[in-house]
Amino acid sequence: MKLTPDFEGRRRKLVRKLRGAGLDALIVSAESNVRYLTGFTGDSTWLLVSRKQVTLISDTRYETQLADECPDVPAVIRDAGSTMNASVAKVAKSQSLHQIGFEADHVTVSQLRAMELSLTSVSLIPTTDLVEQLRQIKDKWELDQIRQAIQMAERGISVVRSSLRPDQTEKQIRYLLEEAMRGFGADGPAFEPIVGVGPTGALPHAHAGDLTVSESPALLIDWGATTPSGYRSDLTRCFFTGRPTKKMQSVYELVLAAQEAAIRAIAPGVTCSEVDAVARGMIADGGYGRYFGHGLGHGFGLDIHESVRLSPISDQVLAPGMVVTVEPGIYLAGRFGIRIEDDILVTRNGYEILTSVPKDFESAIVDYLA
Amino acid sequence: MKLTPDFEGRRRKLVRKLRGAGLDALIVSAESNVRYLTGFTGDSTWLLVSRKQVTLISDTRYETQLADECPDVPAVIRDAGSTMNASVAKVAKSQSLHQIGFEADHVTVSQLRAMELSLTSVSLIPTTDLVEQLRQIKDKWELDQIRQAIQMAERGISVVRSSLRPDQTEKQIRYLLEEAMRGFGADGPAFEPIVGVGPTGALPHAHAGDLTVSESPALLIDWGATTPSGYRSDLTRCFFTGRPTKKMQSVYELVLAAQEAAIRAIAPGVTCSEVDAVARGMIADGGYGRYFGHGLGHGFGLDIHESVRLSPISDQVLAPGMVVTVEPGIYLAGRFGIRIEDDILVTRNGYEILTSVPKDFESAIVDYLA
Repeated sequence: MKLTPDFEGRRRKLVRKLRGAGLDALIVSAESNVRYLTGFTGDSTWLLVSRKQVTLISDTRYETQLADECPDVPAVIRDAGSTMNASVAKVAKSQSLHQIGFEADHVTVSQLRAMELSLTSVSLIPTTDLVEQLRQIKDKWELDQIRQAIQMAERGISVVRSSLRPDQTEKQIRYLLEEAMRGFGADGPAFEPIVGVGPTGALPHAHAGDLTVSESPALLIDWGATTPSGYRSDLTRCFFTGRPTKKMQSVYELVLAAQEAAIRAIAPGVTCSEVDAVARGMIADGGYGRYFGHGLGHGFGLDIHESVRLSPISDQVLAPGMVVTVEPGIYLAGRFGIRIEDDILVTRNGYEILTSVPKDFESAIVDYLA
Repeated sequence: MKLTPDFEGRRRKLVRKLRGAGLDALIVSAESNVRYLTGFTGDSTWLLVSRKQVTLISDTRYETQLADECPDVPAVIRDAGSTMNASVAKVAKSQSLHQIGFEADHVTVSQLRAMELSLTSVSLIPTTDLVEQLRQIKDKWELDQIRQAIQMAERGISVVRSSLRPDQTEKQIRYLLEEAMRGFGADGPAFEPIVGVGPTGALPHAHAGDLTVSESPALLIDWGATTPSGYRSDLTRCFFTGRPTKKMQSVYELVLAAQEAAIRAIAPGVTCSEVDAVARGMIADGGYGRYFGHGLGHGFGLDIHESVRLSPISDQVLAPGMVVTVEPGIYLAGRFGIRIEDDILVTRNGYEILTSVPKDFESAIVDYLA
């Protein structure tokens, strides 16, 4: 049976939440929330979900695309001479909506002021995470899309790994990886791929630059693919393109052990900070605590960073259907960085590792170069 | 003389504005505003500008990069166990800041609530456009960067135009264009290039898809380059890759006449809506008013869309040093779209057209294909 996205079912769940929150309607303004609920892939378009109706509010640039992508959702289209808020006000009035929620995590302070000026006969209620909570739990179709995004990324890295040459620059590797993933059906990379030789790899969010593979034995690649449906993957692997130093090996093995232990800690009911603490504790015990400054991982899907967050300050609780990255790292400024990242599905009994690129120390050595 | 960015001079101008607004300090949280004032190219980093000091507030992921990119600006670095707002509160306390502005166009309603909870002994004052107003007027170095971004884009389109083949898909053209611009020194495209054959070109914000050049004589390409320094260009040209219909020719010539007339209307002191009205009026007189639904153009620089906006509802006034696109279009759903876009500098006496790709009707015909 072919899986298809159930936009209507998702909207039904959201309406149930509106009832629970005492809202007549919700203005969904975050681009990926609109996409999640309708399939619409453009921007500058809001979705008004009331208990009885759904309405897309957009402008003439998207008239044709809306009709193509979400023919089942009525759209109100304005021209360049009017504003989004004026359109929202008209729809709210025609549907007699009074208590209207907005997405406080996505609406700016200025946008709220403008909304208040246009929607004078309405109470605007801040809400958080109404759609994001639905998005935390991936349905079967979404998991299928994420698996495809992972496959595109894994086939891509396999091309890159087998093409490595001492004279390649970080940028050349980045572009080759993007091209390879597109060749395997990706709409594009899931984010700007990080390709870091030696010291560049020690910058957790580096831009690929002009260092060549030959300039250090350590190479870090953090990458993912986006499917045409918008779902993403997110992985990191380190490769040794020359003889690794003993320090590189011991740091690699510590990061790997911490990552695997954290993955084993994943199960429904466990809090995000508990999983983070497993990896963070091992890295601290190994003497590298202050070289691991970022959170352990994050949810992903239509966005590359989604709720939940695996971090020391997150009290969110894991539940079946969540998909998270687990990506501890140790960064030695000016020398090299090691990060190892996989994508993990929380299952009813524990977890499933969705990614499969080998990560033991021996596999990290590119033997035709080292 | 080599031009260099004057980050300190920009911050000095901002401090003058703070005094005028009665603020002790401003929290700059918009990524490109932080970049404009410091040169820092990462994210998740705020800049606190007080009358006497500037402080970057970031986390360990960016510690090395901050030291490299903005060694002259002190940075407060937090680890994964603490929050941005807690760091801001500490800095505000240590500098005895009380009236602190925030960027209301960029701070979400949720972020403001969290700031209010952390910064209890401070008045948080909404501000708009303090940095954006500085960014509206490009300095010499910025204009030089924009000219480079235009050159990269123009060399790129010249490769694409000379490579056109009937069997090429929109996607293949997009990727070739991106690759060509990178070859000419671009950090990447200024935005996802729009490449639209026939009906795809009638979607103002289309994604490049799988239509081939041979499927319609009309091809629309909207593209730009980003320099390594982060500055962008933004152009649109239409090409006829087969014999254009009479309708295509008359629509093309109407759009071109409207665009050229609007450009001639550009001068200091003119309002944005007046410039918009010139093109909109001509297109309406030609009988296509309802097929031109978007604004006429927009400022650009570090972002692809910046203040000012050329639109029917913008009362902003043009001033020397502003750089705007002028891009009227006519979109005939299911058939084709025509848009022509150039980048214009407002000068002391009028305007300068920065872009130079030919645009008369004859030049749009790709004669080896048509």
